[in-house]
Amino acid sequence: MRISALSEASGVPVATIKYWLREHLVPPGTPTAPNQAVYDERHLRRLRLVRALREVGDLGIGAIRAVVAAIEDTDRSLHDVLGVAQWATIDDQPKAAEPSLEQVDRLLDELGWQVSSAAPDRTVLANVLEALHDLGWLVTADDLLPYARAVEPVAAAEIGRMPAERSRDEVVEFAVIGTVAFDVVLSALRRLALEHHSAIRNQET
Amino acid sequence: MRISALSEASGVPVATIKYWLREHLVPPGTPTAPNQAVYDERHLRRLRLVRALREVGDLGIGAIRAVVAAIEDTDRSLHDVLGVAQWATIDDQPKAAEPSLEQVDRLLDELGWQVSSAAPDRTVLANVLEALHDLGWLVTADDLLPYARAVEPVAAAEIGRMPAERSRDEVVEFAVIGTVAFDVVLSALRRLALEHHSAIRNQET
Repeated sequence: MRISALSEASGVPVATIKYWLREHLVPPGTPTAPNQAVYDERHLRRLRLVRALREVGDLGIGAIRAVVAAIEDTDRSLHDVLGVAQWATIDDQPKAAEPSLEQVDRLLDELGWQVSSAAPDRTVLANVLEALHDLGWLVTADDLLPYARAVEPVAAAEIGRMPAERSRDEVVEFAVIGTVAFDVVLSALRRLALEHHSAIRNQET
Repeated sequence: MRISALSEASGVPVATIKYWLREHLVPPGTPTAPNQAVYDERHLRRLRLVRALREVGDLGIGAIRAVVAAIEDTDRSLHDVLGVAQWATIDDQPKAAEPSLEQVDRLLDELGWQVSSAAPDRTVLANVLEALHDLGWLVTADDLLPYARAVEPVAAAEIGRMPAERSRDEVVEFAVIGTVAFDVVLSALRRLALEHHSAIRNQET
């Protein structure tokens, strides 16, 4: 199909598609004439993926490029690509000093979770503990255990749902979108649950 | 204390304190001379709160101003202030069309949660469902039930931990920081749990 048809099928404006092509978020089409190319289902699927990463995951161009590069590198295991997608969704939170990871490492040990020693979420958790400590809240890694126990079953179910029998591209898309989308879901549901329990408490007092 | 001592005690640079004073994120000090004022424990506590909202919650100046205004409005119930804090942490995700809230409303009905019909998280959830649908994933509100059931007990525990016997300012700070900080915690732990279960699956195949 031409770029105009691709735009119509994907709901992405032609100017945006051209921008994403220039930024290598979408692979080039097959040239049919100078300045003309045709596109297929693969392009359509990729456009939908990039759109979802932007709209659902709120990722920047650089982060999306990293995810796309991981998808296209067939030497990478699915586990590896999932790591790239997860790490891309983490906002860089510059801090003056590196926080101590001691408490977080102890928590992960206690949980028995196998996670890379370079996982940025270790630092994210350590930063939160440090910020709370600075505010005078003595929150320890043990206080995070109920949160870890709450999310583990849903994470396990998500990984279990990844379709093994489909193409690599589709499985990776599934993992990437799932990582981003259900992060937003969990966060929104938690805030709604807080509102609900705060309303109950408000009625009791 | 003078502004220099306030800076030292809070770890916030003097220039930043002056900026936050101008932006009304921190109440003015008590004037002692033209261009000179003294500050007390309340200012120190507020500075720590603003710093945590910026560093932990990644909130912009406008969002922090809304939270601070809610804290200072003593006519507002704690439940109300908690709502303002929660809503401030939601990124505006502009969408061309308003998504249908039908599925989300049905989910909340089924859960029996009392949440405001204006809660922005309803729209956040509906947007995610719509984006997934556009990608060809038939995720329904029922698929979100396990996530809701997972977060409800931790949300209930958080509301239960809010110290009723302390000053209004402290209770509100507790709620505000808790809302923001544990959102980051939950999201980081979920990604670590995904990495762990993906590693297990990777070893099995």
